[in-house]
Amino acid sequence: MRKILVIGSGKSASYLLKYLLEKSVEEDLFITVGDLNTENTKKLLDNHPNATAITLDIFDDNSRTKAIKNTDIVVSMLPARFHINVAKDCIRYKKHMVTASYVSPEMQALDHDAKTNNLILMNEIGVDPGIDHMSAMKVLDGIRDKGGTIILFESFTGGLVSPESDNNLWHYKFTWNPRNVVLAGQGGAAKFLQEGTYKYIPYHRLFRRTEFLDIDGFGRFEAYANRDSLKYQSAYGLDNIKTLYRGTMRRVGFCRAWNIFVSLGMTDDSYTIEDSENMSYRDFINAFLPYHHTDSVELKLRYALKIDQDDIVWEKLEELDIFNANKKVGLKNATPAQILQKILMDKWTLAEDDKDMIVMYHKFGYELHGKKHQIDSNMVVLGENQTYTAMAKTVGLPVAMATLAILNGQITTPGVQIPITKEIYEPILSELKDFGIIFNEKEVHYLGYNPLNN
Amino acid sequence: MRKILVIGSGKSASYLLKYLLEKSVEEDLFITVGDLNTENTKKLLDNHPNATAITLDIFDDNSRTKAIKNTDIVVSMLPARFHINVAKDCIRYKKHMVTASYVSPEMQALDHDAKTNNLILMNEIGVDPGIDHMSAMKVLDGIRDKGGTIILFESFTGGLVSPESDNNLWHYKFTWNPRNVVLAGQGGAAKFLQEGTYKYIPYHRLFRRTEFLDIDGFGRFEAYANRDSLKYQSAYGLDNIKTLYRGTMRRVGFCRAWNIFVSLGMTDDSYTIEDSENMSYRDFINAFLPYHHTDSVELKLRYALKIDQDDIVWEKLEELDIFNANKKVGLKNATPAQILQKILMDKWTLAEDDKDMIVMYHKFGYELHGKKHQIDSNMVVLGENQTYTAMAKTVGLPVAMATLAILNGQITTPGVQIPITKEIYEPILSELKDFGIIFNEKEVHYLGYNPLNN
Repeated sequence: MRKILVIGSGKSASYLLKYLLEKSVEEDLFITVGDLNTENTKKLLDNHPNATAITLDIFDDNSRTKAIKNTDIVVSMLPARFHINVAKDCIRYKKHMVTASYVSPEMQALDHDAKTNNLILMNEIGVDPGIDHMSAMKVLDGIRDKGGTIILFESFTGGLVSPESDNNLWHYKFTWNPRNVVLAGQGGAAKFLQEGTYKYIPYHRLFRRTEFLDIDGFGRFEAYANRDSLKYQSAYGLDNIKTLYRGTMRRVGFCRAWNIFVSLGMTDDSYTIEDSENMSYRDFINAFLPYHHTDSVELKLRYALKIDQDDIVWEKLEELDIFNANKKVGLKNATPAQILQKILMDKWTLAEDDKDMIVMYHKFGYELHGKKHQIDSNMVVLGENQTYTAMAKTVGLPVAMATLAILNGQITTPGVQIPITKEIYEPILSELKDFGIIFNEKEVHYLGYNPLNN
Repeated sequence: MRKILVIGSGKSASYLLKYLLEKSVEEDLFITVGDLNTENTKKLLDNHPNATAITLDIFDDNSRTKAIKNTDIVVSMLPARFHINVAKDCIRYKKHMVTASYVSPEMQALDHDAKTNNLILMNEIGVDPGIDHMSAMKVLDGIRDKGGTIILFESFTGGLVSPESDNNLWHYKFTWNPRNVVLAGQGGAAKFLQEGTYKYIPYHRLFRRTEFLDIDGFGRFEAYANRDSLKYQSAYGLDNIKTLYRGTMRRVGFCRAWNIFVSLGMTDDSYTIEDSENMSYRDFINAFLPYHHTDSVELKLRYALKIDQDDIVWEKLEELDIFNANKKVGLKNATPAQILQKILMDKWTLAEDDKDMIVMYHKFGYELHGKKHQIDSNMVVLGENQTYTAMAKTVGLPVAMATLAILNGQITTPGVQIPITKEIYEPILSELKDFGIIFNEKEVHYLGYNPLNN
């Protein structure tokens, strides 16, 4: 039997484990799942004979190294910052490793050791990063294989709520870490390339520079720019590209409303608000508006941000109950971002029967035989329920498939890897189709940003 | 002879040295001025028999400690971050020390040692901080002495250009470190108190929440909030105050125009612009605007920030020549803030015969015998020329006066001090009057922010 150690069995483990359990008999697998708390794990494993749940504290060197020694491959589903100790053990005990997280500088530093030991440290093989890499590289390589030159690449991903559960004015609920949503876009200007020109957007304007994307059957979305659209420029082989843009998708109208919070300073996580515990939601909003002895918080907010009385954005604010003078924040020494997160969680937490949705949209512009072309490619995955979410599916399945492919010798290139080579993306994208993770590609008229170049 | 060592003889040393030299005979003083480069120092000393210029590298422990050992008191006019080594030597060799800089945590840590050795480490005795402390505490103490309770304190300072040299649309020139002007307000939300409520303004809205201030004979000014208006709340004895606000003064219209740079992200100092060296001023502006193949940078900017065609703010931008496609930035790997500084220095550098101006404005609201009152107090100092500037006068004279007062045993309280006690502010404010540094006080109708409370 081949032994797989899965460390961490949080939100994104459901499909991962389901896939591995279903393959376990025919593939002769035994799966050990280590977590601090095995309750949820046991539910997911459901007494399967080819699996066991163990209590594992990754900060306890003894139990961690014992578990790693005793397996053939390690899947780390831990929060990203905890991978590195596992990775070092994997090098030491000569085990392959798979994670869905971004390659940290510490992980990258293990590349040489991994290669020397003929080990694969596969990273960024979830959805974003993961499926975005694979689906993009497949089309990019295809264009290059037929002699085309890539001139534009734009890529967008969103974790949203499924249309059938989409019942608030923001068309948004928290399907993943709420804190990351509140802090999204902070930490520096967004940078990207448009028609050969570098462009920069400061955080406080990020949500006002969006673009629209339409997906057949799902309507219109909007996207705001990621911090660093150029991160994979070289890895994707796009050093001479004219337009390179990566973004995050929301339903139309979200960004304009969200920008109200950004403008007022309510997403700031760098300082704490005085006496935050005892303030009401209304007091919180008022802290970002000038004092006045009679003017209402509502009018001061409308005036400060020039919001017309009939602007529909206002209803989005009211829906969140932010003007309520009776609801207390109840958080000690909280930052504005923490307080805002709490207010949003009152309204944006998934209900028991809510379903999530992952959307992805790529645009590929290229020149072939002197003519410009464009391929648009998109993917929509809907969750089944709160355990088998679209997020868990799109993160967990590629991780599981890569793990098995490594065990089976189908993926062999050693080192610190991300899934941008044919060896990896071809079999996995192909298998993902069987699970309904399908990209719809279509040739469209080349747009770009300069019609004079067409 | 009493020996004074002045370390550093930059922009703010002119009046400092002039004062000390003029007092040197009657007060029996000998002044040694140490600097890396003694050329400017020698000009300022003009072969005065009671003074000498020495070459002093403060990073050379030997020469630094030798100079400090051999004096009775040390005046450090170095950049703030370099004071600490001098201060430690002063403790070691039992010398008093005077600086115009903010008390750093490292400096504060020397308080116990200073007290044990009966030494005075006097800081923040320039203009802002310095004259602001002294002039505020004099009025605050006066109100308290007659039994009043302080309910409001607002304090504003500005380093501007003298009316006779005020010949650009921004009514602004660099009279001090241009970099600090470009970065002003960055690094976190501004925090203050209005009528008992804490208020927070994020950087990107700071320049849109200004207030107006009128000074007889000098017209109207505006002010934006400092980062931390509450910094001296306890030191000034204002723990129960309702309104506490500190700000920076500009001429009316500056802030609204400056906010264009803030909004576009042009004051950001956290990242570098690609190929900044070869870009034109116009390219620089365009980097913060969306790509378009025909729309002009001008129209894109007007549209992005909703600037009407007849808005006078536009002329301020044009005056800076920011749309020039032929002027090159010429700075390698520059941040937006560095590029903006360069553009501004083309236009805002003081001409040979330009004069500067320091303005200060305090508002004191208080209750006495059940009635509310307000005192407004302001000061205007004009520079004489580019050596004897208003900045050098208002920074250098209090430093010089404090130095002599310590030598003469008029200031005696040991420890890390700032000038907020009568012992310090009474004699110095009184002597400053002889040099034209005068506060005009008037009783005005109490305003506050809540007329219902009056």
